[in-house]
Amino acid sequence: MPERFADATAVHRRDGDAAVGDAIWDGEIVEGWDIGGNANGGYLMAMAARAMADASGRPDPITVTAHFITPGAPGPVEIEANVLRAGQRFSTVRAEMRSGNRPLVAMLARFGELEPSDGPERVDGDPPELPPVDDCAGFSLDDPIAPGFRSRIDVRLHPDDAGFHLGRPSGRPLVRGWFRLHDDEPIDTIALLLVVDALPPTAFNAMLPVAWTPTVELTAHVRARPAPGWLRCSFSNRFVTGGFLEEDGEVWDATGRLVAQSRQLALLPRS
Amino acid sequence: MPERFADATAVHRRDGDAAVGDAIWDGEIVEGWDIGGNANGGYLMAMAARAMADASGRPDPITVTAHFITPGAPGPVEIEANVLRAGQRFSTVRAEMRSGNRPLVAMLARFGELEPSDGPERVDGDPPELPPVDDCAGFSLDDPIAPGFRSRIDVRLHPDDAGFHLGRPSGRPLVRGWFRLHDDEPIDTIALLLVVDALPPTAFNAMLPVAWTPTVELTAHVRARPAPGWLRCSFSNRFVTGGFLEEDGEVWDATGRLVAQSRQLALLPRS
Repeated sequence: MPERFADATAVHRRDGDAAVGDAIWDGEIVEGWDIGGNANGGYLMAMAARAMADASGRPDPITVTAHFITPGAPGPVEIEANVLRAGQRFSTVRAEMRSGNRPLVAMLARFGELEPSDGPERVDGDPPELPPVDDCAGFSLDDPIAPGFRSRIDVRLHPDDAGFHLGRPSGRPLVRGWFRLHDDEPIDTIALLLVVDALPPTAFNAMLPVAWTPTVELTAHVRARPAPGWLRCSFSNRFVTGGFLEEDGEVWDATGRLVAQSRQLALLPRS
Repeated sequence: MPERFADATAVHRRDGDAAVGDAIWDGEIVEGWDIGGNANGGYLMAMAARAMADASGRPDPITVTAHFITPGAPGPVEIEANVLRAGQRFSTVRAEMRSGNRPLVAMLARFGELEPSDGPERVDGDPPELPPVDDCAGFSLDDPIAPGFRSRIDVRLHPDDAGFHLGRPSGRPLVRGWFRLHDDEPIDTIALLLVVDALPPTAFNAMLPVAWTPTVELTAHVRARPAPGWLRCSFSNRFVTGGFLEEDGEVWDATGRLVAQSRQLALLPRS
């Protein structure tokens, strides 16, 4: 059973052709990347994004939207990816991940090549202030919520945001923490799609009366390739209305650079 | 030439069948909804969304993502819409708008029916504080940037954010203002897709050395059906990095309720 993220999200073009273009890719939802039996949404996004990168011949997801249709269980999946337009700098690509005839995830994305820019830059924000990694709260291997998932990623929550785990939610819709893959496996721009969906929901700290907040849609903007080392992440929520809530994420790399911004719309299950 | 937004975004199912389902819709990009000759992106989103609503048999776009591929010029367009999955509460729908064989916009959305919720609500934010409508800055009909567009929508900018128009940008990446359609035409949830892309770019106030910031992708969450009357809008930007910038929008209705949240990724053209 592949434990490395790169292996657990690998896809294989069905026709075996190395050329870019539309096709079907085979992948497999591997055990251990689930939360309560359902594959993590960011894990599914990343797997489909590998097919989209292959289809477009471009490595970096610049902006990716995923609609989560059916929860994914371990087993084989197929991903159909279509390049709608290949431009000079970017390709617009859509994809659908299916298990048998059941659609799991639909995606629409722009792929390109992220490179340093010499244009104007402005950053109104900072990485979240976190105590040193060893002073933050890890998840133990026997985490009852997601034992496998928590052993494949290394998440260390800000102590102020980790109390929900012990029945002491902070009362604030905020979850901050360090992130790296198990064994410090390198994180590419596609792996960032896992990162933006890997921390516990802010609803756990906001004391909303729910056991989970299923993601309807998640959009991630990848702003730069991450440097090696721990990532710093921050997720927050401002509006819980009409049975929905959004969750805004930021991911910063070890050099203090913003590498991804995300927003998801999640459902507040009816009680 | 239709001046009402509802008429200017009307679409007609090609096979004439009233049933829901996949099909092609015909529409027409009408003159006067453009900025410098290119149709406004929110206008195109709204037109495609009408086909998607028709395909799904559900009226409200809950979350909509549009990728802008080629600028749209006045003339006929076709919209292909496919329902990927019709669930109990929501339909996942994708669409592509084309002019001839040229793709203009690709979209992916969830449609449903927005209704008041009796669940928990939390709102951490307020509508932007704006002076009375008549004390805000309107655009005159002879606005050289977008004479037609500015006569079809009624935008009144906060005086602090309107100086760029006279060569006095505020220096802050913030644009706030009142919005309504010409003649106070009612605004449905699909028209909100126009609203989130109708104000001038924040880059004009941030003194970035660009004439325009083309939208790569825009995602809007529609959180409620707007009450009649003026809408209050606020658009801001925090990160200009790597040749891209995001722009976050909020739209509030006359009762003070948040009705839409948006984020777009735009390109900072290379100088």
